[in-house]
Amino acid sequence: MKLARYRHNGTTSIGRVEGDRLIDLAALLPEGAADVAAVLALPEILATAAKLQASPQNSVALDQVRLLAPIVRPGKFMCMGMNYKDHEEEARRLGVAIPTSQVWFSKQITCINGPFDDVHFPQAVERLDYEAEMGVVIGKGGRRISEADALNHIAGYFVANDVSARDWQAKSPTWTLGKSFDTHGPIGPWIVTADEIANPQELTISLSVNGQRRQNSSTELMTYSVARQIAYLSEVMTLEPGDILITGTPAGVGIAMDPPTYLQVGDVVRVEIEGIGHIENTIVAEPR
Amino acid sequence: MKLARYRHNGTTSIGRVEGDRLIDLAALLPEGAADVAAVLALPEILATAAKLQASPQNSVALDQVRLLAPIVRPGKFMCMGMNYKDHEEEARRLGVAIPTSQVWFSKQITCINGPFDDVHFPQAVERLDYEAEMGVVIGKGGRRISEADALNHIAGYFVANDVSARDWQAKSPTWTLGKSFDTHGPIGPWIVTADEIANPQELTISLSVNGQRRQNSSTELMTYSVARQIAYLSEVMTLEPGDILITGTPAGVGIAMDPPTYLQVGDVVRVEIEGIGHIENTIVAEPR
Repeated sequence: MKLARYRHNGTTSIGRVEGDRLIDLAALLPEGAADVAAVLALPEILATAAKLQASPQNSVALDQVRLLAPIVRPGKFMCMGMNYKDHEEEARRLGVAIPTSQVWFSKQITCINGPFDDVHFPQAVERLDYEAEMGVVIGKGGRRISEADALNHIAGYFVANDVSARDWQAKSPTWTLGKSFDTHGPIGPWIVTADEIANPQELTISLSVNGQRRQNSSTELMTYSVARQIAYLSEVMTLEPGDILITGTPAGVGIAMDPPTYLQVGDVVRVEIEGIGHIENTIVAEPR
Repeated sequence: MKLARYRHNGTTSIGRVEGDRLIDLAALLPEGAADVAAVLALPEILATAAKLQASPQNSVALDQVRLLAPIVRPGKFMCMGMNYKDHEEEARRLGVAIPTSQVWFSKQITCINGPFDDVHFPQAVERLDYEAEMGVVIGKGGRRISEADALNHIAGYFVANDVSARDWQAKSPTWTLGKSFDTHGPIGPWIVTADEIANPQELTISLSVNGQRRQNSSTELMTYSVARQIAYLSEVMTLEPGDILITGTPAGVGIAMDPPTYLQVGDVVRVEIEGIGHIENTIVAEPR
């Protein structure tokens, strides 16, 4: 099932994607269900939603709505650094030390952005870059989750662009500021429920800038699988329903190009993952 | 005003501290006001609360309640590294490079703990340490807040212990995992509203372990004042009401002692800040 948050005729709602239509689920939802994570926590409603057929009465054409970030205020927005073998290779060429354990940092939740909304080139930033990433939403929380059981804790998957201000990232080894400028966390286009992704470690993942392919890899190349990531994180902290993780980027980031090629105002960045969908964002000058 | 979240007779509530009594504010609060941050957003209620006089009917003795973390699910829990001149001095002795700009990382919100609750010595951790810190709650949100205006954006102050798993902190330069084990973010004992703190840069801050003084400094020694911190952070991201920041620790952490002296199960760690109050937590083995 694909569950989207969207805006149509002045109203924000949540719907199930069926082909080129979006079946509105508003009538099923309890008051205060703010995003798709809230719906994923309601198994009865998911079961009912799965059975609905699109009709002119209960649905709208997908191309008539504005898709919004499917999740808006997760308790955690955890991000993995350096997790693709091909990206490690290019980092090594740049003289970056390859970590010997999983590297996690946070994007602050105020940076979450819609799947087709503009991304700001901030006034305070000089070097703006992209990172195609697969995102995961936690369904069942827990602590000390075993690697074997980890995939059972995932409610769904999404596409993310871990937009990165490289100059700010370089200022501090903790990274979070360079990763958290407002609008720098576009996610979507919806949440694909976990039952639709038989194996998250065999999906092609790609990114293009103005139609030119920059990243083109497979989640097969992750150093640490999604299951190992969940096991490792939950050794430290309780994962909660609705927490989101983004799982690292493959080779081809702008900073590793020769010469380094950063984003410019006007660029259109598209990230696509097999079986999930795509997001596409235009870089605009940050409004004053 | 001191605003506390507390548990008494099986009920969780929010109250105003007056002397050794806690005036219950439940009757004033809208449904769903989950913590003190929610109350700080309601100026009319704050004004009414300020006028209440403690009586046997509307209040309980402070020593009869269990004080809880005053804020439970902030949108951000941002933390500053290396921000006291005396702490920089000891770091330099350890061969740590002194950063040339503000270093920020996150504690994940699942680590938030009560001001007098037990702190876990996790199974997965070898070297557990403490860090006395002053905490700040954002009242008025904003982006690109000027240093001159920054203090007007603060709703209140609290005491924090930035409990740190040094072995995990050393594994990754991004720090967040080593700082985010469950229970490793005790905060409290309440929020002191900003009007009671004329100058946040002249408060003594101290920490003791089993009654032995380990940290003893003043917020005067911060490299970057709270106002500069808010200005810098908000250059990157929108600060929102209820966001919390902890503002760095002074000299005297366990890792910098000679020889390094880490926390042990059974240790009692007390952090105190002038004009705010104290928190005190016992280190216990993490339950299996």
